Amino acid sequence: MDGSNVPKPTVKRLAIYYRCVEKLMEKGKESVSSQDIALKLGLKASQVRKDLSYFGEFGKRGVGYDTESLFDNIGEILGMKRRWNVCIVGIGNLGLALANYPALTRSGFYVKALLDNDTNKIGIPMPGDLYIEDVKDMKEIIKKRNIDVGVITVTADNAQTSVDKLVESGIKGIINFAPVKLAVPKSVKLEEIDISVAFRSLAFQINLSSR
Amino acid sequence: MDGSNVPKPTVKRLAIYYRCVEKLMEKGKESVSSQDIALKLGLKASQVRKDLSYFGEFGKRGVGYDTESLFDNIGEILGMKRRWNVCIVGIGNLGLALANYPALTRSGFYVKALLDNDTNKIGIPMPGDLYIEDVKDMKEIIKKRNIDVGVITVTADNAQTSVDKLVESGIKGIINFAPVKLAVPKSVKLEEIDISVAFRSLAFQINLSSR
Repeated sequence: MDGSNVPKPTVKRLAIYYRCVEKLMEKGKESVSSQDIALKLGLKASQVRKDLSYFGEFGKRGVGYDTESLFDNIGEILGMKRRWNVCIVGIGNLGLALANYPALTRSGFYVKALLDNDTNKIGIPMPGDLYIEDVKDMKEIIKKRNIDVGVITVTADNAQTSVDKLVESGIKGIINFAPVKLAVPKSVKLEEIDISVAFRSLAFQINLSSR
Repeated sequence: MDGSNVPKPTVKRLAIYYRCVEKLMEKGKESVSSQDIALKLGLKASQVRKDLSYFGEFGKRGVGYDTESLFDNIGEILGMKRRWNVCIVGIGNLGLALANYPALTRSGFYVKALLDNDTNKIGIPMPGDLYIEDVKDMKEIIKKRNIDVGVITVTADNAQTSVDKLVESGIKGIINFAPVKLAVPKSVKLEEIDISVAFRSLAFQINLSSR
């Protein structure tokens, strides 16, 4: 089962399938068809089948997929079998919210450092035996604690500087919440989260239904 | 230009195209092809063309789309021409972060009420001439301030109760950040934001590149 050359939209959908299959498993469903997944997510069954086919044939025609092994297979592809260490850069409200976000731990992401440049914040104790640390010590902290992923929750103005520091420190991937386009070398993976996209999509649905 | 019967994945992509075209406009680009948009977003040009074709023919073959009119057209479809009033239910760290999220205002979403059930929080002044108000007064507040959209940032346990209250109060749409499946009547639109999806997608990309 190899996942190279998988298009990015497929990767994103795989992460969504994973969550969907997880929920079905929690409900005790033992098998699931591409049609089931497609219906739940508002996609075409042919799309779901095609996405899963990048990784070989999981399902049996007419029977569907065994829920647990589908979950395990997608999980392996997505890297859910391992544990990821995370640092958060910028401990404002959003940074605090993420430091206490249980869904991250459930997905295998463990917050191991909270960094800020505000001397009033440095030293404040935080849940999980952490405290807010000086962003100046980033490189050392990342190396010592084997941190894989950096989360950017600083302002747009400070985002690129923070990213450059993360890259210098040998980070593998970055999640960006700052509303700005960031430059990273090809070796570092980047995901951007724009919360306003969901708001716009909701506005569209309300708009349509009120016509 | 009618948008009824547009599949939900297309709606979501439209919201993303909107942001992409907005950025191109800010850079001073006067025209844009479906190929340009597709490349920027990692989609197929044929997909972009198909999505936009639901709304009639914006573009000219070989020339592409006029950036500004494409932006205006998508914006109209998405309901960006109007102003949406928002209330946030649950003023923890995430609620506070959203109350101060400039990208929302830029997209036409104005936070008009911050509700919580914690008597220690009620009355605390907040930016934008707001203060934290009692969730018990939700119905009155929603009617008086013409609030269209409710944002759920309470815990998973409290989410459905809050949603039921929003629905009773005549809300049009709900954005859910709580990690739980919510039930709403068909007349109320619902968008769920699961931040862990982006983390999982990043993990997959790191996983692949390290093989």
